[in-house]
Amino acid sequence: MTEKAHVLFSGGKDSSLSAIILEPFFDIQLVTCNFGILPTGTVAADIAQELGFPHQILKPDVSVLKAAAETAVKDGFPNNAINDIHRHVLTMLAKTDGVSMIADGLRRDDRVPHVPLPEIQSFEAKNKVLYCSPLMGFGRAAINKMIESNLVITEEESAVMLKCDYEAELREYLYGEIGEEATHKLFPKSHKQSRVISRIRK
Amino acid sequence: MTEKAHVLFSGGKDSSLSAIILEPFFDIQLVTCNFGILPTGTVAADIAQELGFPHQILKPDVSVLKAAAETAVKDGFPNNAINDIHRHVLTMLAKTDGVSMIADGLRRDDRVPHVPLPEIQSFEAKNKVLYCSPLMGFGRAAINKMIESNLVITEEESAVMLKCDYEAELREYLYGEIGEEATHKLFPKSHKQSRVISRIRK
Repeated sequence: MTEKAHVLFSGGKDSSLSAIILEPFFDIQLVTCNFGILPTGTVAADIAQELGFPHQILKPDVSVLKAAAETAVKDGFPNNAINDIHRHVLTMLAKTDGVSMIADGLRRDDRVPHVPLPEIQSFEAKNKVLYCSPLMGFGRAAINKMIESNLVITEEESAVMLKCDYEAELREYLYGEIGEEATHKLFPKSHKQSRVISRIRK
Repeated sequence: MTEKAHVLFSGGKDSSLSAIILEPFFDIQLVTCNFGILPTGTVAADIAQELGFPHQILKPDVSVLKAAAETAVKDGFPNNAINDIHRHVLTMLAKTDGVSMIADGLRRDDRVPHVPLPEIQSFEAKNKVLYCSPLMGFGRAAINKMIESNLVITEEESAVMLKCDYEAELREYLYGEIGEEATHKLFPKSHKQSRVISRIRK
């Protein structure tokens, strides 16, 4: 029997490609984190269906998002906040029944989220799970080549298109807390988002 | 047309799995480094045939091996020597006609060879190639699961079985220069080698 790999899925090209890389080796189960602030879970579910992978929604308590929002405001930038959410989601998923292998879409050149090697090793040992980032050994240009032949992508400004990642709900939550103008100051300007439209089958 | 990926190949399980991971995305060309000290090129060619991938031998000047041997003796351990050979091979391959994408079998938990991120980025820019390590996002246990379902492996002591990596020829060269006993002191004891016997096709 093939083992299951639970792949954290934002509907974007990196998490989609991670699942496609693992597909010959594991039964893929996509997982999208949703705090109930935006309909990211259902949007991701539609994209997952297009890709042909089963999908589930993981619902951490909104207090996790609240704490991350406070961190982002205190820091003046969102990196630590996004790392905190990612760590929480990894641990929550690791403690879920039937989860033995967790994957995410982190890349070699990513700055956030980022999980340092000693933390990965302790996370695997403590939770008795395996964790991998299939794109960690690839740079942006190589990843783009792999995506080109496998996925049809659309790219839009964050403001126009809902991406199903932590940042989308973090922004939305901050709009309500500190207003749009103050929130925009925390995030890099003109942030292009990618979303998967369909899969190219060979 | 699918782009070619040149995968550095030692006949071991890690470089074999790297090629298998890239196979859905690139035309695979295996490349084995040989200094003319041991028949590592032809042994690797046989394993490549078993895997079903085209194979070529890259022959750097023996002065590269000599310099690395001097480094290993000076250091009292082989890590920097092996890194130096790997860097030289990457650059030589990058300067070869028709090479645009280079891959190796380095893993997340590997200590050597190791190429730090700023060096990777400068290597890619300087040589106008892409470089990737498909296993960099995976730990040993996850890699073993992926190998289990794809490759039949044999494991033996280094002394018994010829592995087609840099270390094999470095050891052999040092035997002639400083003798077996002194050479054994430089390398970790009881070094298990893996070699691929055949591929499991699904």
